[in-house]
Amino acid sequence: MSVTAIGSIALDSLSLPTGEYPEILGGSASHFATSCSLFTDVAIVGVVGEDFHNDHILYFKDRNIDTSGLQVVHGKTFRWKGKYEKEAMDQAITLDTQLNVFETFHPEIPEKLAQTDFVFLGNIHPKLQKEVAQKTTAKLKVLDTMNLWIAATKEDLIQALAEVDVLIFNETEAREFTGRENLKEAAKAVLDMGPKVVVIKRGGEGAMLVSAEDLFFVGGYPVEQVIDPTGAGDSFAGGLVGYLGESGDISRESLRRAVVYGNIMGSFNVQGVGTEVLSQASREEVDKRFEAFKRMMEF
Amino acid sequence: MSVTAIGSIALDSLSLPTGEYPEILGGSASHFATSCSLFTDVAIVGVVGEDFHNDHILYFKDRNIDTSGLQVVHGKTFRWKGKYEKEAMDQAITLDTQLNVFETFHPEIPEKLAQTDFVFLGNIHPKLQKEVAQKTTAKLKVLDTMNLWIAATKEDLIQALAEVDVLIFNETEAREFTGRENLKEAAKAVLDMGPKVVVIKRGGEGAMLVSAEDLFFVGGYPVEQVIDPTGAGDSFAGGLVGYLGESGDISRESLRRAVVYGNIMGSFNVQGVGTEVLSQASREEVDKRFEAFKRMMEF
Repeated sequence: MSVTAIGSIALDSLSLPTGEYPEILGGSASHFATSCSLFTDVAIVGVVGEDFHNDHILYFKDRNIDTSGLQVVHGKTFRWKGKYEKEAMDQAITLDTQLNVFETFHPEIPEKLAQTDFVFLGNIHPKLQKEVAQKTTAKLKVLDTMNLWIAATKEDLIQALAEVDVLIFNETEAREFTGRENLKEAAKAVLDMGPKVVVIKRGGEGAMLVSAEDLFFVGGYPVEQVIDPTGAGDSFAGGLVGYLGESGDISRESLRRAVVYGNIMGSFNVQGVGTEVLSQASREEVDKRFEAFKRMMEF
Repeated sequence: MSVTAIGSIALDSLSLPTGEYPEILGGSASHFATSCSLFTDVAIVGVVGEDFHNDHILYFKDRNIDTSGLQVVHGKTFRWKGKYEKEAMDQAITLDTQLNVFETFHPEIPEKLAQTDFVFLGNIHPKLQKEVAQKTTAKLKVLDTMNLWIAATKEDLIQALAEVDVLIFNETEAREFTGRENLKEAAKAVLDMGPKVVVIKRGGEGAMLVSAEDLFFVGGYPVEQVIDPTGAGDSFAGGLVGYLGESGDISRESLRRAVVYGNIMGSFNVQGVGTEVLSQASREEVDKRFEAFKRMMEF
């Protein structure tokens, strides 16, 4: 196993311009692992309730995603209900959140997973992210966070950051967390807190990477139509960590390519509802899009 | 002379978060020529009133900008009064527009300028753009337009487009003009109207170029602080046409580099009030920024 991902597993009910999609597979770990599994072996650590569909478990198994760290407990699975409006597809409107079994989730890392080289700490409480980061001996620990934790548990998040190598978040979160309008400055403020690399996701506008050695900008892969952006950030992270896990290379050049792969996986994610299109993509299609993107950007 | 630029010359009064700047040199031809003059010889064709400051004429002469096509007539110079708010520096709020001598402007191209290889048709009525385009024998005719003409004189604009090789406009204008949300589709709709190349400016997000042979995307050059975006689009066009004029090369590769130079010149433009920073830039600094940008974007 080269990547272990800790995060949420949810049943999402989406209201999209193209229709209503009740209780489909969602959550940060689901999108991350779907994306990551195109590159390398990945295991998920998370929790679901007794109502979690067997076909979702099979979905993971069919993708060779290790579920030995998936806890099935009494109670109901985490549910999120959200809406997107045609004119503002980049802004999720939360209609309802039911944490359910996710509220008391405590990640347990099976011994074989504690040895993986790459760990992804997805959307869970930063105290748990810190705890997992301290327990694993991974050569690269990547943390993703979201506005909720920045607003409610900023101090815990700062402590978690001291334990990881890479922080991934989006531009709004970068500004909220650091109070800096300029994204490069925001990233530099985070570098002072522990991470060696900061990746700022910019939705359809691409991403940037900032480290002591590098400053890298990449535009967004042009997508004809955004169907559902839910999980795009996690798919981005899945491509990024997946590529690093596959290559085993964390050089400056490899990190740049990993960010571009993240971009590409995010572009597949938004083209379908939930993991619909992402999960149908082949590694060949991913590489084809990577190469086409490279050609579109060269000068 | 390698480039002739037709457009507005204005006295802009700007209300910026950093202060009030009354009656500074503005207008599409002024920004375009300031930017273009770093690359190649450029002449401006426009009109000013009897109140136009001599030091602005000297400003052009000092930059080796040919003013033989600049008409000085009785009346007052075109004035624009605008405001930008800190949180939305990409949105100009027009407080007042006084067309003055610009209202009855009829461009007269001095004979020596009618022979230039590159013509830029900046912000003037599309009927005049068409007339000038038909009169010149330039090997590349580049037209820039704006929301005003798209809304008020769309049919005239369509007729002008039949006479030119390159259309430059921004993403909002591209969508308004074509009714297509997707920018690639919007560009393709324009290609059917005559131009062989469409360049869509995306402000701080960069630009894209679409032609029958090429599809090119470039992100924005990251600027620490936007001071004044007025004229950034014209400075972009000045870099683009200036580079083509200097190299004499309109190949696919050269057009890509020209778009990037456009981006770079736009980035200098926004860093100062009016043409303040742009006009201080040296060709060496421009190339340095071009190379730094290339390094930031490579993967």
